[in-house]
Amino acid sequence: MNIGFIGLGIMGSGMARNLVDKGFEVVVWNRTASRMDPLAAAGAARGASPEDVASRCDIVMVCVSDSPDVREVVMGERGLLEGLREGALVVDHSTISPSVTLEMAEAVRARGADWLDAPVSGGSEGAARGTLAVMVGGDSSQLERVRPFIDSYASTIGHVGPTGAGQTVKLVNQILVVVTGLAVSEGLLFAQGAGLDLRSTLCAVEGGAAGSWMLSNRGPQMIERDWRPGFTIDLQQKDLRLVLETADELGIPLPATALVFQLYRALQRQGIGSEGNHALVKALEGIAGFEVGGRAE
Amino acid sequence: MNIGFIGLGIMGSGMARNLVDKGFEVVVWNRTASRMDPLAAAGAARGASPEDVASRCDIVMVCVSDSPDVREVVMGERGLLEGLREGALVVDHSTISPSVTLEMAEAVRARGADWLDAPVSGGSEGAARGTLAVMVGGDSSQLERVRPFIDSYASTIGHVGPTGAGQTVKLVNQILVVVTGLAVSEGLLFAQGAGLDLRSTLCAVEGGAAGSWMLSNRGPQMIERDWRPGFTIDLQQKDLRLVLETADELGIPLPATALVFQLYRALQRQGIGSEGNHALVKALEGIAGFEVGGRAE
Repeated sequence: MNIGFIGLGIMGSGMARNLVDKGFEVVVWNRTASRMDPLAAAGAARGASPEDVASRCDIVMVCVSDSPDVREVVMGERGLLEGLREGALVVDHSTISPSVTLEMAEAVRARGADWLDAPVSGGSEGAARGTLAVMVGGDSSQLERVRPFIDSYASTIGHVGPTGAGQTVKLVNQILVVVTGLAVSEGLLFAQGAGLDLRSTLCAVEGGAAGSWMLSNRGPQMIERDWRPGFTIDLQQKDLRLVLETADELGIPLPATALVFQLYRALQRQGIGSEGNHALVKALEGIAGFEVGGRAE
Repeated sequence: MNIGFIGLGIMGSGMARNLVDKGFEVVVWNRTASRMDPLAAAGAARGASPEDVASRCDIVMVCVSDSPDVREVVMGERGLLEGLREGALVVDHSTISPSVTLEMAEAVRARGADWLDAPVSGGSEGAARGTLAVMVGGDSSQLERVRPFIDSYASTIGHVGPTGAGQTVKLVNQILVVVTGLAVSEGLLFAQGAGLDLRSTLCAVEGGAAGSWMLSNRGPQMIERDWRPGFTIDLQQKDLRLVLETADELGIPLPATALVFQLYRALQRQGIGSEGNHALVKALEGIAGFEVGGRAE
């Protein structure tokens, strides 16, 4: 059986590669065709278009950047819908709007196929190592159908509810990530301004109620002023826009997330949108007029 | 050798009890005398005043609520200073202002004694079980002198810098705790408003970059609407006041911490200052007009 994989960006290429390496027959497609080369060299077949991939596969994974990209892949010219097989399943690993997800799922179901929204977390390292976490919305029997394939690139697969719930849980994840990142930024800014040794401080507090993944993993990077991205500000901001749009549709006030969105906006304007999301601390530094870490302490 | 212990509140009584249970000779004192009864029954001696305790002990622990309480115990009528032995050591486990700490340390040193600021985290359970984390500022050889006693009630003892640094690290800890708590509150509010199953959501995200102690420990309490305190809003607010005063002295902007302080202020006005600090979510619920969790899901 062929598995289709559409979208070979920093995440998709690692995921597709894991499918190929596990011995599955994979048909890939990417808008920029040259990104198919390494996969083809590893044994994948090249698709001519999303329509072509859909016409050759019962299961099609999609992993692109944003809602308009998914819409184009599904509904655009030579899109998935034009080639979709009866009984096929589309698994969308992109992080997109829950409402666009409902629209895509409806269109696919009208053709006798089905849809799972299955956004991932764990970054490019997770995609390459096969240790992603996947949050799945949709029919749980459809999830069981594709679980053996998703297992190629994920270590945690959680079914969280009906269609759209996977995307919505991913948005919750992003709220937690950025506001916890704000906590770490503000804590380290205060520590710096008060003249503390930042490493001793981090060490003294990370094991208790103050602890978080962001503190233990991004705190040391902030102290060393290492802004290499696990996840870039530009992508984070794209996800926060989805969070705030969805919250606006649903009438949910999110004061802290909205603050972080504005701070990231300032950093994008400074031209550092390609830095890691932990560069959030630079927005506070800009307000405070001093920098965190960076010296031998 | 006698060990003095002044302040038998919810934290101090557990800590003093652990000292007694380890076989040390402990002289206790508390402003409300009846709180000495259980300790006396367990084998501690009663002091007549802080002065009396100081005159009988080379090492005196203090664990009271706030800066004015420490000032009263040290400098008040029949206070520690009046009875302090040459070469004695005062260990202050209270969470108080770093600048008041410097003032107390100076006064004690003028009498030929020394001072360690050693605020704790881990709550009343930690005090009772002997698993507190202690952040110590001051002379490290003085810390070695009292480490065997502190070991009775702490599992982690970190020397973080000179006098005042322990208090300042504790304030960093509180910034992290409350802003991470805001992240959890906002994440769960969004999840609720979007109709997600809160338990599945928490389970899907807590293992990754969104994870924190607050999410894994206070998130389930929020979902169950269990507001029993690990740490009360009133005490949290006392500590945030220290954070914001210290930040103001030092000229450090803390936008998220300031927001949380205002939200807790609203909850105190509603009369729920004795609830746990995770009741922060109620402030967001008040803005949003709906509640998180509480139903069978």
